[in-house]
Amino acid sequence: MSCRVNLLTHTPRADEVVTAAARLCYSDSTADNLLTEELASLSVPLLELLQRSGHHSPFEHASFTFAVDGLSRVTSHQLVRHRIASFSQQSQRYVRMETPDVILPPSLLTCSEAQELFLKQAREAHETYKKLISLGIPQEDARFILPHGWETRLVLTMNARELHHFYHLRLCRRAQWEIRELARLMLIETRKAAPLLFALAGPSCLFRECEEARPCGRPFNDMEELLAKD
Amino acid sequence: MSCRVNLLTHTPRADEVVTAAARLCYSDSTADNLLTEELASLSVPLLELLQRSGHHSPFEHASFTFAVDGLSRVTSHQLVRHRIASFSQQSQRYVRMETPDVILPPSLLTCSEAQELFLKQAREAHETYKKLISLGIPQEDARFILPHGWETRLVLTMNARELHHFYHLRLCRRAQWEIRELARLMLIETRKAAPLLFALAGPSCLFRECEEARPCGRPFNDMEELLAKD
Amino acid sequence: MSCRVNLLTHTPRADEVVTAAARLCYSDSTADNLLTEELASLSVPLLELLQRSGHHSPFEHASFTFAVDGLSRVTSHQLVRHRIASFSQQSQRYVRMETPDVILPPSLLTCSEAQELFLKQAREAHETYKKLISLGIPQEDARFILPHGWETRLVLTMNARELHHFYHLRLCRRAQWEIRELARLMLIETRKAAPLLFALAGPSCLFRECEEARPCGRPFNDMEELLAKD
Amino acid sequence: MSCRVNLLTHTPRADEVVTAAARLCYSDSTADNLLTEELASLSVPLLELLQRSGHHSPFEHASFTFAVDGLSRVTSHQLVRHRIASFSQQSQRYVRMETPDVILPPSLLTCSEAQELFLKQAREAHETYKKLISLGIPQEDARFILPHGWETRLVLTMNARELHHFYHLRLCRRAQWEIRELARLMLIETRKAAPLLFALAGPSCLFRECEEARPCGRPFNDMEELLAKD
Repeated sequence: MSCRVNLLTHTPRADEVVTAAARLCYSDSTADNLLTEELASLSVPLLELLQRSGHHSPFEHASFTFAVDGLSRVTSHQLVRHRIASFSQQSQRYVRMETPDVILPPSLLTCSEAQELFLKQAREAHETYKKLISLGIPQEDARFILPHGWETRLVLTMNARELHHFYHLRLCRRAQWEIRELARLMLIETRKAAPLLFALAGPSCLFRECEEARPCGRPFNDMEELLAKD
Repeated sequence: MSCRVNLLTHTPRADEVVTAAARLCYSDSTADNLLTEELASLSVPLLELLQRSGHHSPFEHASFTFAVDGLSRVTSHQLVRHRIASFSQQSQRYVRMETPDVILPPSLLTCSEAQELFLKQAREAHETYKKLISLGIPQEDARFILPHGWETRLVLTMNARELHHFYHLRLCRRAQWEIRELARLMLIETRKAAPLLFALAGPSCLFRECEEARPCGRPFNDMEELLAKD
Repeated sequence: MSCRVNLLTHTPRADEVVTAAARLCYSDSTADNLLTEELASLSVPLLELLQRSGHHSPFEHASFTFAVDGLSRVTSHQLVRHRIASFSQQSQRYVRMETPDVILPPSLLTCSEAQELFLKQAREAHETYKKLISLGIPQEDARFILPHGWETRLVLTMNARELHHFYHLRLCRRAQWEIRELARLMLIETRKAAPLLFALAGPSCLFRECEEARPCGRPFNDMEELLAKD
Repeated sequence: MSCRVNLLTHTPRADEVVTAAARLCYSDSTADNLLTEELASLSVPLLELLQRSGHHSPFEHASFTFAVDGLSRVTSHQLVRHRIASFSQQSQRYVRMETPDVILPPSLLTCSEAQELFLKQAREAHETYKKLISLGIPQEDARFILPHGWETRLVLTMNARELHHFYHLRLCRRAQWEIRELARLMLIETRKAAPLLFALAGPSCLFRECEEARPCGRPFNDMEELLAKD
């Protein structure tokens, strides 16, 4: 039911690259030998300091590229509002939608009547889409009748600074469920690839304090609990 | 059938502000009295030179804010891909969709069978949306079943440099019809508000040469013809 | 000694435009009549709520353009690091530096020996600059010998969201004195032009809590004291 | 005399990542197995098509990080005007300038009188800098007297789309010599790392036509000649 996230590629040795860039600002080391010095011992305290004090600009040097399948266009519309990011999304103008691929929101799983209504409607919309095309309507116009929850695929790239911002906003329980799930899967991947860079990434309630007008009560005690939920 | 565009507000004396900023770069005038000097006579040749030579950066100082009604979410999804822009869009999470407001693509007007199918399907999708809500499904999930062509409303701001880029891309006949119509209506408004800034705005075929792999044949001779079409 | 700031132009009725855009997101009002409704009564509570909860995106619709004279190139180099902003700066490649215009940092005022050394050195650098040009060196190369504190002029545009961020960072006592003075003069102007939009703009210590590793002790009790200092 | 450029890190398999992202937009392949398919044969024609038709957005998924030594602050001021980029620059507020490190423009090499004047002035400015610090002036203020041509170091990251734009502007003979040299050294490195992505990168005169008001006469026949010059 949930989207699938695949960390396609990322800046190699991301923790060290960010450490090296941050260090250059405040020392008289030359840029030549930034990565040949002993960075490992520096990274832990320096990256923690940068995260705690909000000095995220060196985090921009590390970049992460994900392939995402099985996301609704409802959510991709929200996702592309993040402007410091790069997206390549499957086009409904050029690619014909052959099968009825709609995302089923989890709230429907608890009510079989709602679920049946939803899926029947999605199938009928897809039937109408195909009939319109057979009547000569261009597929770029026929898609207007497909449900907004239709599945899409995309490749997205964000740097580690924007990812922190993304996780901060989108792992909050007040975020919409699908983008929250996407953020959870992305963070699991980025923590494997660059554990120090994302050691303190997550919703504000777990690191500072809740910023929401209506707090959710914080059902998680730490990031491990939040990431383990399913 | 078409969206409605309203130029809500814009930088006052936009032509002169851009002229003054461009002039500062290459003269030893002080910044103090930029707008009190005789700018009117300078604006015409200077703004034309900047547009012809592609030196658009002073155009960023003039900004334009539009209110848009009656645009499909298919097209708003494309529109928000313009990252050097600001958007405030009506939320389907918080605002209930009370009436079946779907955008009917013009290609359907020529085929009554297609049109009936499309509108019937849209009504049924809206019925399903309302039934799902009455069964206790949150409206943020029920909207997954609404057609992607559903109507949305938004406020958008772009500066004159990004507007040139937007018109360049989106007034091309290879652009999707609805965003092309949006661009046409926006350009009509901005040409009234700042005639010099947008004197040379439009698709590349009318000012340089076509950049498309499959040219459209250029059915318009100039911008007046292009803007007058309906 | 200090730079001079002139608010050249800005989005008219900025408070109301931002209120209207924010309101559209959460209501079913049409975009057509956004500014004709009674916005004045809404603006006060809505704009305060947006600032307190960090929902600044509607603030992007209001934009402010400043002319700045008498700023050092040391500080303009920092200033242009703000990437969500537009700059037109006087070129030292094209404009000859005729008089020895260097910015004198205030710390030199308390030590006449330092001040004399500094000004003598600046004059000599300017003499060398002129001699190099008379020897046939291009002025774009001769300027390499001018002091980094040389005066520059520029036009800059930021939207109200970025201005909040700029004031937040640059009004902190840990910021460099000249960019802090620039920020102070800019905020005085923007508070006149859009009092509601900037009611809660300033360093974090006066609105939430200090984020610096080494706090300054907060010599000001409120924004009025901070802005009145000279 | 020239700056030194070191490609610190970059997106691995950059040519293939961009090919995969571009391909997703127009096919019904799933995002899951983007990089496992046979991309090599696709890359050559697809990346050339994207470059020729100006469809550069998939190029954003590949990112390149450089360390730069021996660049003047005159040029770093220009460089950071590229806003779709990330910079970490050595701070003159925090790092003391111990030795007289000024960049000598090549035009001075042909005139020994000019060269002596320049270097003498730079040494004296550095003497004054040190004296000011010994008189108790903070180093962040003493640096106002250092020449603008002072050496700086930085780490910079750009994606391949912005790099194309950077090379397009900065390899033009009308660009300032030092940023042109920086661009030349960067392009040599990126062509090694991702030959297909940068096969058509360079000034407009070598790929389309000159856009300058005053053309330079094009002293190079192709990119190999341009990159080989020294």
